[in-house]
Amino acid sequence: MRDPLRFVKPAVRGMDAYTLSPHPSKVKLNQNENPHELSDSFKRAVVERALARPWGRYPDFFPKDLHVMLADHIGWRSDGVLVGNGSNELIEALLVVTVGQGTRVVIPEPTFTLYGMVTAMLGGEAVRVPLDAELRYDPDALSRARAQSGAAVTIVCSPNNPTGSSLPSGAVERLCEDDSGLVVIDEAYAEFSGWSAVPLLQRYSNLIVLRTLSKAGALAGLRIGYLLASPELVSEVNKARLPYSLNFFSQIAAEEILGDWEAVAERVERIVNERGVLAAALARLSGLRCYASDANFVLVELQDAHPVAVFEALAAEGILVRDVSRYPGLSRHLRISVGTPDQNAALVAALPRALALARVQVGE
Amino acid sequence: MRDPLRFVKPAVRGMDAYTLSPHPSKVKLNQNENPHELSDSFKRAVVERALARPWGRYPDFFPKDLHVMLADHIGWRSDGVLVGNGSNELIEALLVVTVGQGTRVVIPEPTFTLYGMVTAMLGGEAVRVPLDAELRYDPDALSRARAQSGAAVTIVCSPNNPTGSSLPSGAVERLCEDDSGLVVIDEAYAEFSGWSAVPLLQRYSNLIVLRTLSKAGALAGLRIGYLLASPELVSEVNKARLPYSLNFFSQIAAEEILGDWEAVAERVERIVNERGVLAAALARLSGLRCYASDANFVLVELQDAHPVAVFEALAAEGILVRDVSRYPGLSRHLRISVGTPDQNAALVAALPRALALARVQVGE
Repeated sequence: MRDPLRFVKPAVRGMDAYTLSPHPSKVKLNQNENPHELSDSFKRAVVERALARPWGRYPDFFPKDLHVMLADHIGWRSDGVLVGNGSNELIEALLVVTVGQGTRVVIPEPTFTLYGMVTAMLGGEAVRVPLDAELRYDPDALSRARAQSGAAVTIVCSPNNPTGSSLPSGAVERLCEDDSGLVVIDEAYAEFSGWSAVPLLQRYSNLIVLRTLSKAGALAGLRIGYLLASPELVSEVNKARLPYSLNFFSQIAAEEILGDWEAVAERVERIVNERGVLAAALARLSGLRCYASDANFVLVELQDAHPVAVFEALAAEGILVRDVSRYPGLSRHLRISVGTPDQNAALVAALPRALALARVQVGE
Repeated sequence: MRDPLRFVKPAVRGMDAYTLSPHPSKVKLNQNENPHELSDSFKRAVVERALARPWGRYPDFFPKDLHVMLADHIGWRSDGVLVGNGSNELIEALLVVTVGQGTRVVIPEPTFTLYGMVTAMLGGEAVRVPLDAELRYDPDALSRARAQSGAAVTIVCSPNNPTGSSLPSGAVERLCEDDSGLVVIDEAYAEFSGWSAVPLLQRYSNLIVLRTLSKAGALAGLRIGYLLASPELVSEVNKARLPYSLNFFSQIAAEEILGDWEAVAERVERIVNERGVLAAALARLSGLRCYASDANFVLVELQDAHPVAVFEALAAEGILVRDVSRYPGLSRHLRISVGTPDQNAALVAALPRALALARVQVGE
């Protein structure tokens, strides 16, 4: 029998899978998770609704109540909302309906890797736009790339993962007004920034906003994302969303968290405050630079220690951060999620030791 | 602003979304669901594990224990298993890594609609192979279509949804031995048939088998599917599986159901027995023909009443079946899931009334 891998597309064969190796840790600051666990009473309320429901029955084909609740929550029309199994599923569905062989997609770099991977698997061509020297977005460069490439789609993560930087004021409007393609703003971290493109949906029919309940909502384990756009665009993206992709348990949890948003907002405020405390503490350490962040994580640049060595030295102490040194332009960087005050203090205490250890290794 | 829908691919624009209208019902026989709900003690065991787990943390990147359990359960190597958010996600991932512009995919008809929809959205071309006059698979026609089209992939649902027919003995071997493309057998209903292609994985590296815990496992509400193939193929399909697509709750439920499979097997046996009782009762009714089925549903052909009218007359009595009359070759057909003895009896009692009512409407 000949090699069955010959039926796999060359673009896929040449690609590495998205991976993350599990590490045991007592302080987990590597996935931008919300460190404030939901209350027992909240979890019990979700579980009681789940127990009352037959598990052998499919989820709602279209969870209408949840769409109306999300619309009310975010301030947009409910027929312009589409919920999915994490915003990843909605990014993929959006790209499936827009990207074919040779379709160009403008994607800044560095940014969340999924946009480029899915684009490539669909036969599309990612047009990369580097951030500026300070790792901030460059709206002029984005506009130029769109105009020159004739890209059907532009995807910007704002605040950006893994840098924490946001698009500057007026940039979304400018991108949308170009009217040369769809503009996708991935707002996974928007609740920590205080700014959102959602009010602009009213004005721009080529704008699509992605949101999630994973980060601010502390529901990363249950995978709930949503997409906001004109009803016409939502209806096209919906064609590529897999039937029943949101299981009933996640649907119930989403409905319950939207009814408990004051508690969510309070936890977001604590994280934003802690981000300031953490950034200030990091700034006092020598040998690294901490970038300003609008998200629930900070990016640090190491002056004279290799990020992999620092990552490993921290991991040896049970502290997990994200090694982002393989991202373009981030060869000296680590990403650190904002944890609880105790977790952040443990990190700040361990970092000088880890940096010293990493410097010794380089010297050897 | 010009129409932003111009950035949506024409193949998608021309497509209808997969839909299912919700109907209130007391007897629900329209989605091939397992009518035997899981025990309270089972559900409580899952829920207790869920409560003990932080919901704000991502699911396992790679749920290794679950893969090992699935491998043990099904009798295949664990590095040849890939779990996903329903087998739908795995069908899509498989097609994303194999289908580009113009790639041909052999798909029987009528069958589950998702294969053709995803193929078309990816720019591929579905090569349709009709079932024979008795709605059975025609292995000669399948082989011819593969040879003539040079299809990279052939997808066969066996037992087939919505007809209930299986590939005849030796047909999977013959398809695989052609070695002219990947052979995908969707075994969503295999537990009700007593036959599986899984033992053939050892022999054929171009074979891929899809399974689900939705039907036999009575976990349709939680969306758990798995794919079985050579480790090399699994590793390629995995590139298109979205990170963290299986939420932690579904993962726990999957682990628990695999540890409770005797109860599952007992429920499957009850459904298979009930299928015989239901088919015999339907055969005694005049005005319809009931096809033999290897799945947890039966297909019926109506002699002189329109399926939509019968569907509506049944729905008016609170009994929901599936109108499949828009499937190619099934213009006179309805699909009926095997329910509990009471549910099936209610259907059998209501059908003569519904048929009479539908005939009157035609007469008017």
